[in-house]
Amino acid sequence: MKIINGGVTAPEGFFATGVACGLKKDGKKDLALVCSEDLAAAAGVFTTNLVKGHSLQLTMEHIRNGFATAVLINSGNANACVGEVGLENAREMAALTANYLECRPEDVLVGSTGVIGVPLNMDAIRKGIELAIEELSPDGGHDAVEAIMTTDLLPKEIAVEINIGGEKVVIGAMAKGSGMIHPNLATMIAVITSDVNISPAMLNRALKKAVKHTFNRVSVDGDTSVCDMVIAMANGLSDSPGITEEDGNFNIFFEALEFVCTELARMIARDGEGATKLIEVVAENAPTEEDAYKIVCAIAKSPLVKTAVFGEDANWGRIFTAAGYSGAKFNPDLTDIYLGDLMVCCNGVAVPFDEAEAARILHEKEIKIRVDLKSGNFSDRMWTCDFSYDYVKINGSYRS
Amino acid sequence: MKIINGGVTAPEGFFATGVACGLKKDGKKDLALVCSEDLAAAAGVFTTNLVKGHSLQLTMEHIRNGFATAVLINSGNANACVGEVGLENAREMAALTANYLECRPEDVLVGSTGVIGVPLNMDAIRKGIELAIEELSPDGGHDAVEAIMTTDLLPKEIAVEINIGGEKVVIGAMAKGSGMIHPNLATMIAVITSDVNISPAMLNRALKKAVKHTFNRVSVDGDTSVCDMVIAMANGLSDSPGITEEDGNFNIFFEALEFVCTELARMIARDGEGATKLIEVVAENAPTEEDAYKIVCAIAKSPLVKTAVFGEDANWGRIFTAAGYSGAKFNPDLTDIYLGDLMVCCNGVAVPFDEAEAARILHEKEIKIRVDLKSGNFSDRMWTCDFSYDYVKINGSYRS
Repeated sequence: MKIINGGVTAPEGFFATGVACGLKKDGKKDLALVCSEDLAAAAGVFTTNLVKGHSLQLTMEHIRNGFATAVLINSGNANACVGEVGLENAREMAALTANYLECRPEDVLVGSTGVIGVPLNMDAIRKGIELAIEELSPDGGHDAVEAIMTTDLLPKEIAVEINIGGEKVVIGAMAKGSGMIHPNLATMIAVITSDVNISPAMLNRALKKAVKHTFNRVSVDGDTSVCDMVIAMANGLSDSPGITEEDGNFNIFFEALEFVCTELARMIARDGEGATKLIEVVAENAPTEEDAYKIVCAIAKSPLVKTAVFGEDANWGRIFTAAGYSGAKFNPDLTDIYLGDLMVCCNGVAVPFDEAEAARILHEKEIKIRVDLKSGNFSDRMWTCDFSYDYVKINGSYRS
Repeated sequence: MKIINGGVTAPEGFFATGVACGLKKDGKKDLALVCSEDLAAAAGVFTTNLVKGHSLQLTMEHIRNGFATAVLINSGNANACVGEVGLENAREMAALTANYLECRPEDVLVGSTGVIGVPLNMDAIRKGIELAIEELSPDGGHDAVEAIMTTDLLPKEIAVEINIGGEKVVIGAMAKGSGMIHPNLATMIAVITSDVNISPAMLNRALKKAVKHTFNRVSVDGDTSVCDMVIAMANGLSDSPGITEEDGNFNIFFEALEFVCTELARMIARDGEGATKLIEVVAENAPTEEDAYKIVCAIAKSPLVKTAVFGEDANWGRIFTAAGYSGAKFNPDLTDIYLGDLMVCCNGVAVPFDEAEAARILHEKEIKIRVDLKSGNFSDRMWTCDFSYDYVKINGSYRS
């Protein structure tokens, strides 16, 4: 596997663009269109929030048949909690796009991210779709990722090249998400494209498996949004042999897909609202899978841990405290805690450590917190970011 | 019931003091002693964190027989995660105090709050206990509450007078806690005293019942500490008839006790680290008790809701989102949301509201968020505070 330049338009036969249609007050790009030359196998993973955005509801309906031609995503407005008009607007977005692309409306997926409870400005959207169609380009991946950003500071995209059956296969991807990020998914939207030749069922299996330990292991603030989705589209335009079962070729594709998801998940945590540091939380040797998950989740969510990392304070007591209230069953008297490679707690008791070394580790941009429970064989990992003044600033005035 | 001046020494036969023994770097009071003239019925509620501070562990052991004479609490050091020496130090604190008071060591309860993982400075503690004994006073309640403060800005105490069987009964109380606050309990420590005549079993029942919807409904940051305890002592020195069953007199006492706990809980939320506002979150007409609890808990914990309140931004979409991911089962399409008395969402859909009125409501020091689920008969309530720059500042450098 090799990392290559580009994003969603890196694979064969994908076109994209991002345009400014007036949904964002600052005139920045706010409408992204990604489409495939041919009908593509498609799979999606969606928010578990009981409240679901209208665009997301339509996409869940449209993806059921396992195929899609295009994904249209607007930023600046979540198209959520606005009543019947929300679903009507989502349908119109799909229908208009389908009309231009000469495909069926049910082959167009729709996503929206932004403020909740405000009806979409459909005049802007209609003009935006027309403009997007005109500007579609095989090099438009970067414009598309810019158009899905909200509080993101950096665009998040990646592409990799793999070899399946002697043939070059490319996976490209883009993601957005910076606040309201937590399993399962969040304000997070990701689109993954590939020219791999794979059945919808296998694409679905690979995506669900890849999301579990990647996008479902990112927490910025513990909030799971109503608009989160990860969409994968595979148009089969490479010359690779078809993947219709979980064979060796499936595994090659899955590993690359999981790598792509991991990198995007890390980018999302690193660019968390107000973040100054990426934090990787690892729980090792837990009695059960569930216990390992509960522990990484509690530590990654703890505002006390996250503010301590922001302050570069080796306050491991807060890490231990979070593990203790996580609901996981483990023996505190066997627990070791490390910051990077520095042991700060052994068998549940403070160990004297070099404060200068701790300060050096905490001054890095990537911090690893590791909890070794020494009571089983299960591990888990989660990415988060620190909690800074800027998180408060960004979120104290998001709507206004 | 009438609110009177004072705190833990307001009831008959209680003495207290707070002294500075050198545990806090700034020379502030850091050791509190509260004791009863006679052996008192005693009950406690303790943290559910799997990791438990050493002082708390000893107190759980000492309170088992239902009686206590004194509570000794130090601030500045949590006496937690320091290994065997931690329990030894807690035992010495109880034994020394018992020696001076001429009571049994097991009738002395011990509490500690502060930094985790650092052994107690026992030289300071020994001198402090000697000093505290000298300064014990029937008017020492206020000194005691000052000595248990850590990041608290305000001391938290209250006293009420009730009438049981024609006789005056007083309940006094003090509490501390400002960060790492969440059900069940937190860095929170509360001591409640009364001269009521009540059996240990009834005191225990009343306390557990009173804590449920008061201290267990406060969240500052979702973190539950390893040192949290609520202790109640009743020495029977009033002339009230004895309470040995859940009769009318029990109810009179319970209602006053619950009022005291409610007021302290609100004081804790209002004085949450960096807080500028007290937030009361109410879920009404939920299908089950559990659903109501999950909803208030998710909303009260959400950093996005808390930063929006700090920014006085009527971002009700975040309230609805938190309810949606809370795990509660409800129908989003029936849900109404209010800020104060202002309806902002009706049947899951945005309603146009007067932004000036919303701004006025959010500018108050106490904000009520109410979610009406219209799908059952269960309600719950939780207090929290907003999330400000100061929360980050306080917690970015707590240890240093």
